[in-house]
Amino acid sequence: MENLKPRPANSSPLTPIGFIERTALIYGDSPSIIYNSTTYTWSETHRRCLQLASSLSSIGIQRGHVVSAIAPNTPAMYELHFAVPMVGAVLNTINLRLDARTISVLLRHSETKLIFVDQASCALISDALALFPSETKRPLLVLIADDTAAQDSSLSSSVLIRNDFVDSYEEMVRKGDSNFEWIRPVSEWDPIVLNYTSGTTSSPKGVVHCHRGIFTVALDSLVEWGVPKQSVYLWTLPMFHANGWSFPWGIAAVGGTNVCIRKFDASLIFSLIRRHHVTHLCGAPVVLNMLTNSPDNRPLDRPVKILTAGAPPPAAVLLRIESLGFVVTHGYGLTESGGTIISCSWKSEWNRLTQTEQARLKARQGVRMLGVEAADVLDPKTRKSVKRDGASIGEIVVRGGSIMLGYLKDPEATAKAITDDGWFFTGDVGVMHPDGYIEIKDRSKDVIISGGENLSSVEVESVLYMNPVVNEVAVVARPDEFWGETPCAFVNLKKGLTRQPTEEEIIEFCKGKLPRFMVPKTVVFTTELPKTSTGKILKSVLREMAKSMGPTPKSRL
Amino acid sequence: MENLKPRPANSSPLTPIGFIERTALIYGDSPSIIYNSTTYTWSETHRRCLQLASSLSSIGIQRGHVVSAIAPNTPAMYELHFAVPMVGAVLNTINLRLDARTISVLLRHSETKLIFVDQASCALISDALALFPSETKRPLLVLIADDTAAQDSSLSSSVLIRNDFVDSYEEMVRKGDSNFEWIRPVSEWDPIVLNYTSGTTSSPKGVVHCHRGIFTVALDSLVEWGVPKQSVYLWTLPMFHANGWSFPWGIAAVGGTNVCIRKFDASLIFSLIRRHHVTHLCGAPVVLNMLTNSPDNRPLDRPVKILTAGAPPPAAVLLRIESLGFVVTHGYGLTESGGTIISCSWKSEWNRLTQTEQARLKARQGVRMLGVEAADVLDPKTRKSVKRDGASIGEIVVRGGSIMLGYLKDPEATAKAITDDGWFFTGDVGVMHPDGYIEIKDRSKDVIISGGENLSSVEVESVLYMNPVVNEVAVVARPDEFWGETPCAFVNLKKGLTRQPTEEEIIEFCKGKLPRFMVPKTVVFTTELPKTSTGKILKSVLREMAKSMGPTPKSRL
Repeated sequence: MENLKPRPANSSPLTPIGFIERTALIYGDSPSIIYNSTTYTWSETHRRCLQLASSLSSIGIQRGHVVSAIAPNTPAMYELHFAVPMVGAVLNTINLRLDARTISVLLRHSETKLIFVDQASCALISDALALFPSETKRPLLVLIADDTAAQDSSLSSSVLIRNDFVDSYEEMVRKGDSNFEWIRPVSEWDPIVLNYTSGTTSSPKGVVHCHRGIFTVALDSLVEWGVPKQSVYLWTLPMFHANGWSFPWGIAAVGGTNVCIRKFDASLIFSLIRRHHVTHLCGAPVVLNMLTNSPDNRPLDRPVKILTAGAPPPAAVLLRIESLGFVVTHGYGLTESGGTIISCSWKSEWNRLTQTEQARLKARQGVRMLGVEAADVLDPKTRKSVKRDGASIGEIVVRGGSIMLGYLKDPEATAKAITDDGWFFTGDVGVMHPDGYIEIKDRSKDVIISGGENLSSVEVESVLYMNPVVNEVAVVARPDEFWGETPCAFVNLKKGLTRQPTEEEIIEFCKGKLPRFMVPKTVVFTTELPKTSTGKILKSVLREMAKSMGPTPKSRL
Repeated sequence: MENLKPRPANSSPLTPIGFIERTALIYGDSPSIIYNSTTYTWSETHRRCLQLASSLSSIGIQRGHVVSAIAPNTPAMYELHFAVPMVGAVLNTINLRLDARTISVLLRHSETKLIFVDQASCALISDALALFPSETKRPLLVLIADDTAAQDSSLSSSVLIRNDFVDSYEEMVRKGDSNFEWIRPVSEWDPIVLNYTSGTTSSPKGVVHCHRGIFTVALDSLVEWGVPKQSVYLWTLPMFHANGWSFPWGIAAVGGTNVCIRKFDASLIFSLIRRHHVTHLCGAPVVLNMLTNSPDNRPLDRPVKILTAGAPPPAAVLLRIESLGFVVTHGYGLTESGGTIISCSWKSEWNRLTQTEQARLKARQGVRMLGVEAADVLDPKTRKSVKRDGASIGEIVVRGGSIMLGYLKDPEATAKAITDDGWFFTGDVGVMHPDGYIEIKDRSKDVIISGGENLSSVEVESVLYMNPVVNEVAVVARPDEFWGETPCAFVNLKKGLTRQPTEEEIIEFCKGKLPRFMVPKTVVFTTELPKTSTGKILKSVLREMAKSMGPTPKSRL
């Protein structure tokens, strides 16, 4: 039996790019993309991708080149997820809320050969390119024109940037050859996408995924979430955010319909759900919250499935959104995992519990998905599994087919995240419940170690959120000579309060609700909390502030 | 980017064996297997598999050993699909309708170390072992006792075979350690199962599949067929038949319930569907036919999905079974592909067609599934794709992740089936329709070449089946000095005919219904057609008979 080895007929590289070819064959006449008044069929989308790939090839884009794209959820952005890998190139989607300086850094770090620029991001890219040192070669630019985009001043006023574009997106599609033979990966480990992490804890890192990883997570997500063939998927989650958790490829796999929108608008979303019979959408809990708070939040005619990730959905939000007819699945993933890898798999017996109890269970991240070999919570000292008690804190680790190849040009960060003993360290801190479900408590960098005890900043925050005067809060470590660290709370108060609370009142509020060592020893009132472009609170900045305050005053300890 | 290589954290071998561990975690209290009055939960099934694996290990079964099993669709047969690979061994399921001589050959060829024997197959295995040469070491025997099995005479009468058993199945489960750490494959290309093909065209060949292949086909089949989590699957398809098209692993993946039965019984099936709310089942078209002909064929309360393969479902059968509330999907696969690899993916627009037209479309095998890189029909001479005209005949070829590693100890047959240019030659002959759907016309060995024209024996047979006197028919090639070959029909007539038709009348019946060169030139009446243990007509035997008849008489040409 040892003579039976892989052969070309059974070892062709796993890749998600073939999905579109197959779907065009089967569902050629069915809608692939709906965007405002435009509807494409799968035959058209397949043809357009091939034509675009052909044009990319003819202007010199080759295997291994990085092609960047900065655009909202438009048909072009969707097509690029196939067209760029079809020439063997690597797609780098850029968060369009980043600043010009960061974008400039990313473009140079990735050695981007060409950028597809949505009309509304022209000024941003122009500014980013202006920051390139004069001797550095600039990438080619292709304009994604869009009648429905808000007018961008730089487009009309600046002749300079207009002339910088080598071509327009539609012109490249038009000129391309629909018989282009797409370039298959040589190995399934060949890179397919590059994504820069938003960097809540450190400088942005370029996460590289391979064809095999994306194939695995795309199929696994379809099975786990239960996405039937010809589903109708609404693009609420940005595709530039970890490639929309792999669904550009997943929806092609099932021959579904992609309903595209330029930006989040709850009224529009409710109207599109009704008009196109949307069956599935993704979004962080904040999206669920915005939907429930919309004036158009009438109950749905038929159920819509929501996959939420990025943060645990609060019970109140879950109750409200599910009462409208949405069915929420909660998952967990990172840019480094290509999509969700842990999912709060629902058990039918849980339907008999109270709604509050159901919400508590659903707020947990859950169990490994099918494509993941193992997920565990490791004690930071012993590196062994923590107790399954829902209380012992450790770092969440995973091993599985969709874990990134590594960080681009950063062997140190790669070696730190992906260890030789076969784990990817997520940087998230959590607990293992007795039933084997994982629940996140904090980012590892945000854990506060006070008197040798690991303390979850998120747990302290959740108590502070119960105080009716608190609008937003973040808790970080403040250095202390005796305890090592103590919790320091940065509090943004609600508007229109009749009286400003004191630091002591906030501390008093926490006593009795938290163990003594978890009660904040410092409270700083602030009118604004520093945030990333994706709206995550920058605890690293707050930590620096807390550090600069010096040791905690003795009187508080 | 070229420095980013696979690492232990992202390259763990793909294997379906981890599915059960995960499902036991999530659906531990849900039913895994229902068999007569016994119901197991997923925790129990997982534990039993580990215990059995532990016992196998303790009696010396190791990585790479072949462990055989001969049993109908019982809980033991299901568990063996996990327990045997859990010690790194390779599971060989034996068709329990084979004769003792063939089984004896398979056991020696596979170097089986141990056989699990269902109570009803004891005499058969006893006879097979009696055919071993005296110097050949015999495999260990384990009895799968079953109160509900028909009494087997050898069990009660033969002390010999009783003493041959090293243990009973339940005793091995009982004695095993539930904390056994299962032995993961070193490589995802490690073998997991061995299946001997029934050999309609040649001597049995041992098909070897690897962990990666089975992982791929199992997930792919769930997506293609649309199997939601916690589905209820009825085991009508024998697990010994190409491992039940991968569903022992697939149903574990979705935490479904396996309803097991010892043998096909239409009344029992209807009753189990109603009692356990069965959602899915598999079966060849003959199974569909038996269900529709059952006296219990009342319409179902809720739809049941059927996956059919092995032969195109006849229109009349499709119409009848779907009118009862079954929803049929038609797929295509071979033992060599580990499960279905081509599927007649249904398009919603086809629902608007007439039922007859729908049945015609559904009888086609279809398009490649997601885990398959390519499927094509190649002209036998030019080895290029045939025209997409639904008429040009060629051999069906595929390339994809679930194609076997090869045939055990048969490098010649392996090299013939899996070519260096990356195709697996299925041995099935078909056409490519203009819409890209493949339809099978014949086995390649059964194609008749008359005057240089390829002629599908199946098409001639389908015309003969329209003759009301015909019960069963098989058409093969008869050598001819001028034409090369001519069609020769072996006809089994219906019982109770008032008058026996003549050879000329049968030939006359075909004229006008078939092109002249396709009309049989010889008709042989026979009271029985030679068949394999799985009920397939042995055309190789008929071909020999036709050959021995000498050239076709001139008068007929």
